[in-house]
Amino acid sequence: MVNPEIPDLPRGPLDAYRKKASFDWKEMAIFMSGEDILAFKRHLFTALEKDPIFARQPGEDLSVEKKRELTFRRCKQLFRYDFLPQEKVVQNPWMHAVFNSCLSMYDSSLMAKYMLSKGVSRDAGSLLSLSVNMQTFGCFALTELSHGSNSKAIRTTAKYDPNTQEFVINTPNIEAAKFWIGNLGKTATHVLVFAQLFTPDDHCHGLHSFIVQVRDPKTLFAMPGVMVGDMGKKLGQNGLDNGFVVFHNVRIPRENLLNRTGDVTPEGHYVTPFKDPTKRFGASLGALSTGRVSITYTALTNLKLAMTVAIRFSATRCQFGPSDDEEIPVLEYQLQQWRLIPYLSAIYALKHFCRSFFINFLDERQAELGREIHAISCSSKPLSSWTVQRGIQECREACGGHGYLAMNRLGDIRDDNDPNCTYEGDNNVLLQQTSNYLLNWVHLKHHGEQPELRAAMLMADSKALIWKLPLAAYRWLVCFLLKESYAKLTQERALRKTEFEARNNSQVYYCHSLALAFIELTVLHRFHDFTHDEDTPPSLSPVLQRLAALYGLWSLSKHMTTLYQGGYLCGKEPAELLHSAILTLCSQLKDDAVALVDVIAPPDFILNSPIGRADGELYKNLWSTVLQGCHVLERPSWWSEFCNDKPVVGSLQAKL
Amino acid sequence: MVNPEIPDLPRGPLDAYRKKASFDWKEMAIFMSGEDILAFKRHLFTALEKDPIFARQPGEDLSVEKKRELTFRRCKQLFRYDFLPQEKVVQNPWMHAVFNSCLSMYDSSLMAKYMLSKGVSRDAGSLLSLSVNMQTFGCFALTELSHGSNSKAIRTTAKYDPNTQEFVINTPNIEAAKFWIGNLGKTATHVLVFAQLFTPDDHCHGLHSFIVQVRDPKTLFAMPGVMVGDMGKKLGQNGLDNGFVVFHNVRIPRENLLNRTGDVTPEGHYVTPFKDPTKRFGASLGALSTGRVSITYTALTNLKLAMTVAIRFSATRCQFGPSDDEEIPVLEYQLQQWRLIPYLSAIYALKHFCRSFFINFLDERQAELGREIHAISCSSKPLSSWTVQRGIQECREACGGHGYLAMNRLGDIRDDNDPNCTYEGDNNVLLQQTSNYLLNWVHLKHHGEQPELRAAMLMADSKALIWKLPLAAYRWLVCFLLKESYAKLTQERALRKTEFEARNNSQVYYCHSLALAFIELTVLHRFHDFTHDEDTPPSLSPVLQRLAALYGLWSLSKHMTTLYQGGYLCGKEPAELLHSAILTLCSQLKDDAVALVDVIAPPDFILNSPIGRADGELYKNLWSTVLQGCHVLERPSWWSEFCNDKPVVGSLQAKL
Repeated sequence: MVNPEIPDLPRGPLDAYRKKASFDWKEMAIFMSGEDILAFKRHLFTALEKDPIFARQPGEDLSVEKKRELTFRRCKQLFRYDFLPQEKVVQNPWMHAVFNSCLSMYDSSLMAKYMLSKGVSRDAGSLLSLSVNMQTFGCFALTELSHGSNSKAIRTTAKYDPNTQEFVINTPNIEAAKFWIGNLGKTATHVLVFAQLFTPDDHCHGLHSFIVQVRDPKTLFAMPGVMVGDMGKKLGQNGLDNGFVVFHNVRIPRENLLNRTGDVTPEGHYVTPFKDPTKRFGASLGALSTGRVSITYTALTNLKLAMTVAIRFSATRCQFGPSDDEEIPVLEYQLQQWRLIPYLSAIYALKHFCRSFFINFLDERQAELGREIHAISCSSKPLSSWTVQRGIQECREACGGHGYLAMNRLGDIRDDNDPNCTYEGDNNVLLQQTSNYLLNWVHLKHHGEQPELRAAMLMADSKALIWKLPLAAYRWLVCFLLKESYAKLTQERALRKTEFEARNNSQVYYCHSLALAFIELTVLHRFHDFTHDEDTPPSLSPVLQRLAALYGLWSLSKHMTTLYQGGYLCGKEPAELLHSAILTLCSQLKDDAVALVDVIAPPDFILNSPIGRADGELYKNLWSTVLQGCHVLERPSWWSEFCNDKPVVGSLQAKL
Repeated sequence: MVNPEIPDLPRGPLDAYRKKASFDWKEMAIFMSGEDILAFKRHLFTALEKDPIFARQPGEDLSVEKKRELTFRRCKQLFRYDFLPQEKVVQNPWMHAVFNSCLSMYDSSLMAKYMLSKGVSRDAGSLLSLSVNMQTFGCFALTELSHGSNSKAIRTTAKYDPNTQEFVINTPNIEAAKFWIGNLGKTATHVLVFAQLFTPDDHCHGLHSFIVQVRDPKTLFAMPGVMVGDMGKKLGQNGLDNGFVVFHNVRIPRENLLNRTGDVTPEGHYVTPFKDPTKRFGASLGALSTGRVSITYTALTNLKLAMTVAIRFSATRCQFGPSDDEEIPVLEYQLQQWRLIPYLSAIYALKHFCRSFFINFLDERQAELGREIHAISCSSKPLSSWTVQRGIQECREACGGHGYLAMNRLGDIRDDNDPNCTYEGDNNVLLQQTSNYLLNWVHLKHHGEQPELRAAMLMADSKALIWKLPLAAYRWLVCFLLKESYAKLTQERALRKTEFEARNNSQVYYCHSLALAFIELTVLHRFHDFTHDEDTPPSLSPVLQRLAALYGLWSLSKHMTTLYQGGYLCGKEPAELLHSAILTLCSQLKDDAVALVDVIAPPDFILNSPIGRADGELYKNLWSTVLQGCHVLERPSWWSEFCNDKPVVGSLQAKL
């Protein structure tokens, strides 16, 4: 008997598939998440549903300004709820990721707004103690109008003036305006600014962070010397007010330098615990890797939402059939299964990866060996955000026209996920960190060193005996790409190009593919072991092992050219077998698909998609939501523009 | 000396690349489009730019209602301009596609609204003669809440009543509500309704179309028995008012049946020129294939816009470089070239395909042999809309954060293109028409017939001698997939499944891939011949031939598994050569990329993207547009929500 507190799902057209499921969805939910996490989620979701501040209107069309206001009010309410006090995070840090993910299911902007302000107050420590109850409100300002990825090149300056013991913050030109700063558009009072630190001798000591007040918390008017504003509408996440700021000789106390990586004495001398400036720079950006780990997981949230909508739609939408009188659910079509179910397997694989990696991350963050963690986080964010972005688009198309109706939410989900591919490190740039790390490992090996590589652990033989084909093929693939990339880089270097050119010219088909294959193997390996673990209940392991096999084969199928090219595969049979195995797994999993999304789906209120509701009453839900929209049946306010003043065809031809 | 009427582009940071171009962009523009078309475009674009009704505000954030109003007013203004009177279309029917494409560059919704109303009045003939000057306003109503792809199964009924010589239109249940009908949400007065025709003997004669009045043109209020309304916000194209309608015993005169495919006598007897009901059904939907041909081209418009933005951005955005002091344009990076330039080649290849195919289409529409045209249009729409959708997403990501700012328009372009994958036939469903056609050809061959297949023309040897690798490989690919698909289908049939199941189980990796490979070959073949034609000026053919080669190799690279699987390729070398050729072509084309988008770009006013302006002043344009937005530097209207009434942390915990 599973936990009676997990509410049953409403009966309806989805029952047909639910009855066919090979497992109990509640048992799976408990196994995948744990009872405490499930209880926390229920608690959180119920609170939001009951509170009118979090209510949404059917088919609402909010202006950017209104979205920002609503998100701010909701953010304030989150302070009142304080769902996750610090002591709970200390007890179970994974709870923090779960909380972010739940908030993000309700609205990504709200999650971002709340977390950014919390993050700044954590990083700024005693300098922003007032932020605890929103007396102040913070944001991080790294990127500038002309610099994002190359953050070393940012141009904002902080020059120390020993006469007043202050730093003077300046924006040298508009290209150095801080830009894209979340929370800065309308609400931030204090900014954690990354700037080039100059001592009075005009020596530049590189990037450091400073707390700068930009608005008066009593009025929200800008401080003297500060030009601060809203960047305007984005493709998504419009509840979050991204903004810009330009500094004109803004003076801040010496103590507002966050001095973890370097400090300035009252007289103006620079002191640092780091001898190597590169390491200092790395340490000052270290906090960003936490962000990447977190995005790997919150991005996945978006695919959970979209997949819930698409699978429930596909299980209830009937179209065509064996005869003109009999129509079948579109989920019964091979093509529809193949479009959706591999992404469903990716959700399960990536979800397990995130949880297990998060635990490693907490253990290793401080250690010297954290570099491997860095290499993994730099590729897991790209893998997750891209898989999710493509998966959502597939879900949108799989729901046909109804997927294009805004109220069904697939557009918002896609648009809210999109920036995950860009911020906290552009995906393509980040992948170079991973391949550089792997290539360096080979380099050290070639030079007789014995570098520690716990990724080697990933290459070790798996315990289980079955389903080993994709893992074995992936191991070969990563080794082959590593060897080829190293050779390519060596060859490019030999052409006497600069190291910069040599690296750039080894990306496509080599280092870029290597980094992706490496992280896919990592995710697959972890999920494979998890599904074959002896602690996995026998009632759940068959479906989990099918998901692992499908994720492995489907991911592998994108590298088939390399497998043939390198001679790992040859002839007609292997591709046929692989394709046939993918289709068989999709077909075996299609009767479990509804139950598999029941496990990951939030309550209907949070999902907020008529065609994705748990009762499966697709048309009733859609129809009633349409009718409850604003002015649906009314004639337009501009009706007389139609009824009177008819255009004379061609009357403006003469003016041309 | 090229035409002096083509205005020069403004000087600026893009000059560096423009000077490096291997060809004259004005010469290319004239060669690709013709002077008359260019003049028509200038005329149209200039008129829109001068007319305040078409003005746009920097960073505007319009409500759906406002977008609908503006689009309506602009549509009305288009009637006044009458840019393309019927006699001009008769002279040069391609002009019609060009006009749609130009309007679509300004705004897809406006194009759709204007064209739908024109299309209905054309199809309805004398029944809607008043629509010429908007006394009435029309729309097509085929799809219903529960049926889109399977249009045969729609349920709206039209029963003939001989006593009054009227048809009685009914919606049997909400699932049969007409849904997704463009122009119906707010403005249509008359609907061309597809309904099941019943004679008084209760015999159903299948789908026919009827003109039904739904609103009073004098007031825009609904007619008796008609429930008509607005579906609400969509992911994009929100200027177009999609709507629904439910009929309750709505009576229309007998003459309102459009009687091309069948008619009812005053006494209630059904008469039709078609003996086979399947053919009648096909003929009644024939008009929709015009739509697919048109979408193939208008979809491409979206990629032209996005690519212009992405290439100009990449040519002026500098990030990193060989040393800390020297940054280089991101277009110089191999990875950025590889992400964008193949899509640029796709624009040129698909553009040529559309123009040449459009001419075939006009010649063949009425002929019996139009089936081959049907097979091509059923795959060209999927190829174009998907290539464009993926290309736009790549452009968005290639522009980093700035690509995510709404004012730069990549989001609107993506969202406006998205439904091209769904309407006028879902892409995946349409591709089955193409593969069915090809398989039927094989079937007839196997049974000793000599079916005409002018696609065979496509398979014929190409005239040119160089760059033949991709064409030859593609010919092999299509033949291989045809053979394999036929074998797969035969095998599935032998398993004694129904024909329906056999077809469904032969889609993935077989029929679906076949249809795509077939259309890619068709597009490539036409573009290849065009670029190698002796009439192509020697000053332009090198760059055009590089584009053709890149399009061919890049498209082919997605089928490498099949090429290896079928034994066409073997070992390490072919994939290496292919990849290396793709990268070499990208690198050769990168200095031409800016000039290549200058050829396809509309004027800045139409493009409406600060980071994509022709002067290349990326940061100045972006900065000034941001500052001219609404309330940019003001505190929010809800400032006192922040400044007063601070939340007490945890105060709502007790309520939980």
